[in-house]
Amino acid sequence: MSDARRPGPTVRRSVVEVDGAEVLRRPDFVVTEEPMEIRLAWPGHAATRVAVTMRTPGADFELAAGFLLAEGSLAIGQRPRSVAYCLDRALSRDQRYNVVTVELDRVPERHPSSRTTTMSSACGVCGTESLDGVFSPDASPVPVAGSVGSDLIVALPQALRERQPVFGRTGSIHASGVFGFDGSLVVSREDIGRHNTVDKVLGARQLGTVEFGSDAVLCVSGRIGFDIVTKAVAGRVGVVVAVGGPSSLAVELAERSGITLCGFTRGTRYVVYTHPERIRGV
Amino acid sequence: MSDARRPGPTVRRSVVEVDGAEVLRRPDFVVTEEPMEIRLAWPGHAATRVAVTMRTPGADFELAAGFLLAEGSLAIGQRPRSVAYCLDRALSRDQRYNVVTVELDRVPERHPSSRTTTMSSACGVCGTESLDGVFSPDASPVPVAGSVGSDLIVALPQALRERQPVFGRTGSIHASGVFGFDGSLVVSREDIGRHNTVDKVLGARQLGTVEFGSDAVLCVSGRIGFDIVTKAVAGRVGVVVAVGGPSSLAVELAERSGITLCGFTRGTRYVVYTHPERIRGV
Repeated sequence: MSDARRPGPTVRRSVVEVDGAEVLRRPDFVVTEEPMEIRLAWPGHAATRVAVTMRTPGADFELAAGFLLAEGSLAIGQRPRSVAYCLDRALSRDQRYNVVTVELDRVPERHPSSRTTTMSSACGVCGTESLDGVFSPDASPVPVAGSVGSDLIVALPQALRERQPVFGRTGSIHASGVFGFDGSLVVSREDIGRHNTVDKVLGARQLGTVEFGSDAVLCVSGRIGFDIVTKAVAGRVGVVVAVGGPSSLAVELAERSGITLCGFTRGTRYVVYTHPERIRGV
Repeated sequence: MSDARRPGPTVRRSVVEVDGAEVLRRPDFVVTEEPMEIRLAWPGHAATRVAVTMRTPGADFELAAGFLLAEGSLAIGQRPRSVAYCLDRALSRDQRYNVVTVELDRVPERHPSSRTTTMSSACGVCGTESLDGVFSPDASPVPVAGSVGSDLIVALPQALRERQPVFGRTGSIHASGVFGFDGSLVVSREDIGRHNTVDKVLGARQLGTVEFGSDAVLCVSGRIGFDIVTKAVAGRVGVVVAVGGPSSLAVELAERSGITLCGFTRGTRYVVYTHPERIRGV
């Protein structure tokens, strides 16, 4: 298998930049968006498609593991037996790095067979089959022992931005980072899909690359929809900090799940939507 | 049926605003995110679920019609026989305004039965079942006769922003607008999901609320993923202008479909990724 077709996080493209009357033809970088199919196998069960997500190539195995965590097919701390690109010869060369198979060493707690669907670059709850399936009301509240300071919270977006090589090149990609309550960065990942960035950082723990518990802050570069909080609940992360604002359902779920949710984190200012008791001085 | 539970575009919420050492408890507005189920019926075929999308309530019928246009279940210019909230008594009160049924007067060209999936607030290509299903390579290029000026392009994001009542209240919602080549606003809609805003403006034409042809500009408030260009192709809109940047697949599809794609439209500057020949002086 040649690496010639392996997609990178950016592609080169000739563009025309216009500024008033100035017209400049120049090369540019555009962030890569490619579909990735996630397949799941376990003893006695051949690999079957669980989802197709539009993503930026990179940390693909973490993306697959994090997605399966959020789906309930992997438990926290449960390592897959293997994660690999599919070598299926029926796949075209273009697609060889766009199919990832996760093999478990036991039957998954939640059977993912009904979620054989494609997600766009910004889609995090794809695949549930009805209104009732959208909600996952049965999670117990996320336990958190420690507390965080406001000075730490307002510093996170900038700390995250400094770890965004693809953003630096393209000006157009999301990121998530997990930080300790002391402000130390545990892991950060980029992707065109906000929900994928969360899957990637949670998947990094799932594959044993990093360790963190619920005394942690998930910082996301954009807004907070219901899908993002759903993943934070599955990952048992106690605090979510975003640069953008949350949706009504995101706030509802954070409230119910014991997650401290902060939005509009800009400069020295931020807004706490739920569970301020974890923030010192608030 | 009482309107008491009918969801609005925002919900009130008590929040804690923190700015340095200042801590202020105050009421706030949060943008509403609710699931909406789209059902499709035609003669001899009972209403069946086509999709569930996370959306901001408002222009729900347009959202349903625009979604079906992008899916190929409705043709441009084809009016549905009816569009209505579902009165199914099995639905809980909460969900009465979250199910929309579109009834056609003929069998749809593309049968949507395989797309029984949920989309997040930012998901536009949900439901295709494999890598091959992600792509829709068979559209003929969008015809455009006229041309646009740079002065018009750079003015659109601000013109769109001025028509965003919910953004003004929440600071956190996407918008799309369709403009004529003379800069006149034809229609604009807001939603927490970027892809939904496009469905809503295209759906407004589908329901006969507004008229426009391919000599039109679709202006979107965020980035441009593959899903957005897919909808522009289905809606035969010749020019797409975004405040954010495009993805590689978005650029590829725009190139192939004859769509002029502009990104990073900020101040007097913008970047043309495809088909600059439609822009005067470029």
